[in-house]
Amino acid sequence: MTAAYYAAVDWGTTSFRLWIIGEDGSVLAERRSGEGMTTANKTGFHAILERHLAAVDAPSHLPAIICGMAGAKQGWVEAGYLDTPAALSDIASHAVAVPDLDRDIRILPGLAQRDKRHPDVMRGEETQLLGAAAELGRGRHLVCMPGTHSKWVRLEDGAVSGFATFMTGELFDVISKHSILSHSIADAHIFSGDHPAFAAAVAEARTNSALGTSLLFGARAGQLLHGASATDAKALLSGTLIGLEIAGALATAAETIDSICLVASGSLGTLYQAALESLDCPLAIVDADAAVRTGLSTAAQAIWPL
Amino acid sequence: MTAAYYAAVDWGTTSFRLWIIGEDGSVLAERRSGEGMTTANKTGFHAILERHLAAVDAPSHLPAIICGMAGAKQGWVEAGYLDTPAALSDIASHAVAVPDLDRDIRILPGLAQRDKRHPDVMRGEETQLLGAAAELGRGRHLVCMPGTHSKWVRLEDGAVSGFATFMTGELFDVISKHSILSHSIADAHIFSGDHPAFAAAVAEARTNSALGTSLLFGARAGQLLHGASATDAKALLSGTLIGLEIAGALATAAETIDSICLVASGSLGTLYQAALESLDCPLAIVDADAAVRTGLSTAAQAIWPL
Repeated sequence: MTAAYYAAVDWGTTSFRLWIIGEDGSVLAERRSGEGMTTANKTGFHAILERHLAAVDAPSHLPAIICGMAGAKQGWVEAGYLDTPAALSDIASHAVAVPDLDRDIRILPGLAQRDKRHPDVMRGEETQLLGAAAELGRGRHLVCMPGTHSKWVRLEDGAVSGFATFMTGELFDVISKHSILSHSIADAHIFSGDHPAFAAAVAEARTNSALGTSLLFGARAGQLLHGASATDAKALLSGTLIGLEIAGALATAAETIDSICLVASGSLGTLYQAALESLDCPLAIVDADAAVRTGLSTAAQAIWPL
Repeated sequence: MTAAYYAAVDWGTTSFRLWIIGEDGSVLAERRSGEGMTTANKTGFHAILERHLAAVDAPSHLPAIICGMAGAKQGWVEAGYLDTPAALSDIASHAVAVPDLDRDIRILPGLAQRDKRHPDVMRGEETQLLGAAAELGRGRHLVCMPGTHSKWVRLEDGAVSGFATFMTGELFDVISKHSILSHSIADAHIFSGDHPAFAAAVAEARTNSALGTSLLFGARAGQLLHGASATDAKALLSGTLIGLEIAGALATAAETIDSICLVASGSLGTLYQAALESLDCPLAIVDADAAVRTGLSTAAQAIWPL
């Protein structure tokens, strides 16, 4: 069996994932838990990390590379931001070491766009991006990383020229739970990307993006006037928000792009894939879990070359 | 003193307002309470109405005209919808009488737009509209009635050609309370329509409406990167949602319009006025309370002519 090389950690707001990576690049062990930043701020980042490392018998000298909210101001050790335009190859060299520990632990920085009109930040997604970029050639790419706060990144020859965050996932959640539409979608079933109401909503929101906050109300009006089902209403809500996101992201990318790269997994990835396939642009799909691991590995190899 | 002519009632989801109107058109008495449809569904519409009428010593034969949610399917007696295109003068003739009562009580219908792509409904605002229309001449007008669910109506020579609901007020509420932006705006002060962050957000959302769900995130990123205050963030959230609404409403009104009419009152009206004054279009302002009373009076005079 290959020797352990480093531990790779994706430390989000509400999730913790750790992999032990061998010298041959293989995953030797994996840990997942809900001990994200919110929990770690109470029970301690160091204690959580060491407990997971001990659970997989990681040697005490094994270094660890971390991305995500552990590097936020309210996290473990602030790792700051790389400013756009930013070369992805600079991420590793801006890692911040956690001081006063025996173990060598580095936290990767986020990205900041200090534009006055469109200020934006990301933390964690830059590492997914570093991983996904390995699969993309040179040229101009739009990278979509859907989620609570979806990120769309304009990538040119391995450098981030700009990006935009869309609150799609969070808006879907708060509107579903707390608005009048919660009644409309209460009994909805799971739907897929080829559901007619989803596809129609994506197309309508892309065509009429100015009407976004009005199209959402169509979920209720469609039930009152046309007998639309709860599943139709939920699909309309999801399709409208995703369609608005795509319209906005494409509006930021005025020039020709060579491909759109979707970095996602699970059912959310399937929905975005369906929404993006109708675009007249080559679509590359990268698994989000694999991307963050590849990104952490790229950084680890730069920091601790074998 | 003039004799009582009729009782006029605006019965919303969470509010109840009643006026006793004299034969000379004056307001003889007024009642307000929180006994909207939600409460009335538990304690009874008839009981609530009669208690308020008794409190102002209204005669037992005094008729009552009602608009709003009392006419919804889940209300007192369903009053249906007038379909667009709809002449406002048809509202009164489609009023539904509450059966089996000694008192003559009529409930006004809502409006429905049975368009497949943009289905929409209103209930209550059609009566405000009837009142506001009295102050507008012939011609093409866009009438804006801001609120939890803002309505924008295209009015042509006294007929509604179409309308759109924007979930502006409710989105502001759920995003303020339940999203990550709740932290950004937690300590915000009251702001007015000339607050720079509000004005900038309105302009930005009107110009870049496709970026709507991304501009919202700027409230957080602006704090992290530029030290924006909580009040700035709240003004940005409000201005972005109102700017998106205006952009969408103007997109539905492709042809030349003669005026925009804002039917509003209080601080919300002031914000919309500030947002609309930068448009190159005559702006008329009608008080929302006066508009609903005028609309109820117009209908009452048609049903029970003196």
